[in-house]
Amino acid sequence: MATPAKLGFIGLGAMGFPMASNLISKSAKGSQLFIYDVSEASMSRFAEKHPNSTVVCKSPAEVSSSADILFTMLPEGAHVKSVYLDPATGVLHDGMAAKILVDCSTIDVDTSLLVLDAVRQSKSHSGVSFFDAPVSGGTLGAEKGSITIMLGIAEQHDPVYPVLLPLLQLMGKHIVPCGKPGMGLTAKLCNNYCSGLIALATAEAMNIGIRSGMDPRLLARVFSSSTAQSTICDTWNPVPGVVPAAPSSHGYQGGFKVQLMAKDFGLAMQAAAKAEATTLLGPAGLDAYRKAAQDPNCYDRDSRVVFRYIGGDEKWQEKL
Amino acid sequence: MATPAKLGFIGLGAMGFPMASNLISKSAKGSQLFIYDVSEASMSRFAEKHPNSTVVCKSPAEVSSSADILFTMLPEGAHVKSVYLDPATGVLHDGMAAKILVDCSTIDVDTSLLVLDAVRQSKSHSGVSFFDAPVSGGTLGAEKGSITIMLGIAEQHDPVYPVLLPLLQLMGKHIVPCGKPGMGLTAKLCNNYCSGLIALATAEAMNIGIRSGMDPRLLARVFSSSTAQSTICDTWNPVPGVVPAAPSSHGYQGGFKVQLMAKDFGLAMQAAAKAEATTLLGPAGLDAYRKAAQDPNCYDRDSRVVFRYIGGDEKWQEKL
Repeated sequence: MATPAKLGFIGLGAMGFPMASNLISKSAKGSQLFIYDVSEASMSRFAEKHPNSTVVCKSPAEVSSSADILFTMLPEGAHVKSVYLDPATGVLHDGMAAKILVDCSTIDVDTSLLVLDAVRQSKSHSGVSFFDAPVSGGTLGAEKGSITIMLGIAEQHDPVYPVLLPLLQLMGKHIVPCGKPGMGLTAKLCNNYCSGLIALATAEAMNIGIRSGMDPRLLARVFSSSTAQSTICDTWNPVPGVVPAAPSSHGYQGGFKVQLMAKDFGLAMQAAAKAEATTLLGPAGLDAYRKAAQDPNCYDRDSRVVFRYIGGDEKWQEKL
Repeated sequence: MATPAKLGFIGLGAMGFPMASNLISKSAKGSQLFIYDVSEASMSRFAEKHPNSTVVCKSPAEVSSSADILFTMLPEGAHVKSVYLDPATGVLHDGMAAKILVDCSTIDVDTSLLVLDAVRQSKSHSGVSFFDAPVSGGTLGAEKGSITIMLGIAEQHDPVYPVLLPLLQLMGKHIVPCGKPGMGLTAKLCNNYCSGLIALATAEAMNIGIRSGMDPRLLARVFSSSTAQSTICDTWNPVPGVVPAAPSSHGYQGGFKVQLMAKDFGLAMQAAAKAEATTLLGPAGLDAYRKAAQDPNCYDRDSRVVFRYIGGDEKWQEKL
């Protein structure tokens, strides 16, 4: 970006903080970032890190009064609703300057489309765009700027795309236009539904092998060269000691937390119900992630901890 | 192989025929293949194809009386039991010449270990080895000689391995020593359990996306660059029109038939029960493959036809 920009970021949590940090530190010199978070401590920490470019605001409304392009990264649909629509403090208000609103939260599609509708229907917001843009790649990816951003936009038709793309590229590596509003969220929820089931299937299959006397490293090699190959098996293998760099080999630390998988999986099941799509494996998958998220031996660990949840033998190496 | 060999092959079905064909046609000049099949027509067809090297036998016992190394490729455990152990016609008998017995059938581990036990306990068979060696890669792979062979052997310790390896390489591309007897079957069943669940999970996830209005080609691209990546998604995608070369794009013709997946999945569930391994997704997966195998719209199709079985929209392209 050659021209200094007036940007906004609301929600400086585990993902939002490093994303906003990349956004402003890689933007053109002289750019400003208007920030808001419910935690004043987070805002102070951010302002200390970027003292010359941060403007701390008192509400989402204050951010949208100043920033031209605004990003939000919030935990759940209810937060997105209130951040955008609250009559007193919300982003949408008559004095809004922002023309492009991008919600990076992973929430249900309906809430996202409800906000889009509010943006479209309000007369004072003509020319304002709103996009769903959930991300994947975890906190480490957010720090490195290597996340994937799934954007609910029709690449070919939307004049905003060329404006937005270079900004998104400051925060992420793969920017995937997903066709139309809501499709960014749909893509993310479908991906996590599938990925969650692959992890559980791989954990179960490897557990059968281990308990039958097979070395799981050999078994993973068979999978990788055959039809059970997956990125989960190759990079995020649920069995400790099979992939040295995987969270499972380090007490399931880091990675994608099991309670977030439970949340996303639940949202995917909602989307499936709404679309009247059959989910034969879904109920057992959702039950496993929800229960694992409540299990003190699994909570806050990488979601591939489902291997532990199903009673997988983590000390297989001692028995070979 | 420089020296002519006396080889045997029992079971000239969809897989056995092309495997035996590769075995003899790539063997050293002057090698002989002693064959047996319940179908005389299959034996005649094979003898016509390899007139100078085939010896048609009247029973498994006759094959093992002449061949030094013998392969079997049979549909189910019951066939393996009778082909090896039948007192009148079975492979194991006092006049047996064969020293290396290799069963390539996909059967339950218990039956395989039972045959191994019979080989080991019989006094007249000292020095005879028996291995489980199931294959993957389908009939096309068997014809091309590109199958993977999972061998129940400890590579480092077994003196038979260097004798067997060059012969297996005439029939397959990847030979994977799996550690010990029964582990070839264990590896194959675990792989197909996992692969069957990945296919169903991918079908369900893509169906959610399609019914929510997303282009499945875009969705597959998201999966491939994210945590839902798998060989099933990239090469065997269950949704017609996503991967042009996949069976799904050609009326689910070719590939790995759904009734065989149902069989292997059932064997994997048996293995899991025996090993007391938890299968949270297994029951729903087994039920889906068994019912799909009985559905006239799915029977005899590639197993990724589960997309059709769950009511997936195969005409999504007309609605974009």
